[in-house]
Amino acid sequence: MNKPVQDFYSGEAAVCYGCGRLNEFGLHVKSYWENGISVCTFNPQPYHTAITGYVYGGLLASLIDCHSTGTAALAMYNHQEREPGSEPELRFVTASLIVNYIKPTPINEQLVIKSFAKEIGKRKVVVVSELFANKVLCVTGEVVAVIAPDNLFSK
Amino acid sequence: MNKPVQDFYSGEAAVCYGCGRLNEFGLHVKSYWENGISVCTFNPQPYHTAITGYVYGGLLASLIDCHSTGTAALAMYNHQEREPGSEPELRFVTASLIVNYIKPTPINEQLVIKSFAKEIGKRKVVVVSELFANKVLCVTGEVVAVIAPDNLFSK
Repeated sequence: MNKPVQDFYSGEAAVCYGCGRLNEFGLHVKSYWENGISVCTFNPQPYHTAITGYVYGGLLASLIDCHSTGTAALAMYNHQEREPGSEPELRFVTASLIVNYIKPTPINEQLVIKSFAKEIGKRKVVVVSELFANKVLCVTGEVVAVIAPDNLFSK
Repeated sequence: MNKPVQDFYSGEAAVCYGCGRLNEFGLHVKSYWENGISVCTFNPQPYHTAITGYVYGGLLASLIDCHSTGTAALAMYNHQEREPGSEPELRFVTASLIVNYIKPTPINEQLVIKSFAKEIGKRKVVVVSELFANKVLCVTGEVVAVIAPDNLFSK
């Protein structure tokens, strides 16, 4: 698949600061399905600093958060043997987030996050992630993602 | 104490996007010590959206992250019976972060985070947090914060 799952989010599901294509100020996290895992790349900006030279932890948590909800959708589409863009649209939100900061993450490298679904339920997917900078594992994450309840949307 | 602990961070410890007073693009998280707990208030911007009307989870994780490292410093200063601004300066970084999203967090309310140290070690503080919007508990967090190692700093 050549398009990231976030490009299929519609309307109010597509305005997230982390991953919404319609949020002009946002981070625009993009999650691509590649043979059973989900991959995101991100280039930190110079102002995303923690202590000089390193990425602040909140950005890393944000990337893992949004990439994990995207991964949950990709894994669920795959599990249901259908493609993103088919109905009904799948949009997950985060129930819980765990981030382990293994090493300081350098700010001048492209970051690569590789994630997979370790558990797929009816409305819940558990996603585990590894974040690398220059092939060095810097951060791990685990997200419990659940399908966004209908009453979150105003329509 | 009338000054937040982040106002005492110096040099490379004060450029964090989340809480550095010297980061002109950042969130400027401020942590105030009030009778054994640490309090942070934050007003989300309209673009900090998740699904329309709610705050995206990455911002909430970022606030808890930076407020927790600030709280760790405040708790350690208090434990050592000295004030922020005294030497040696205390600057904590995050080893691990857990965030539980209990309810969707409305974007049009001031957020209040109340945190305390549930464990204080020699170089480690465990901080637990509750985040409220209009007095409703929306998010809880737990951070293991450790004193930043000297080699993180370039000087």
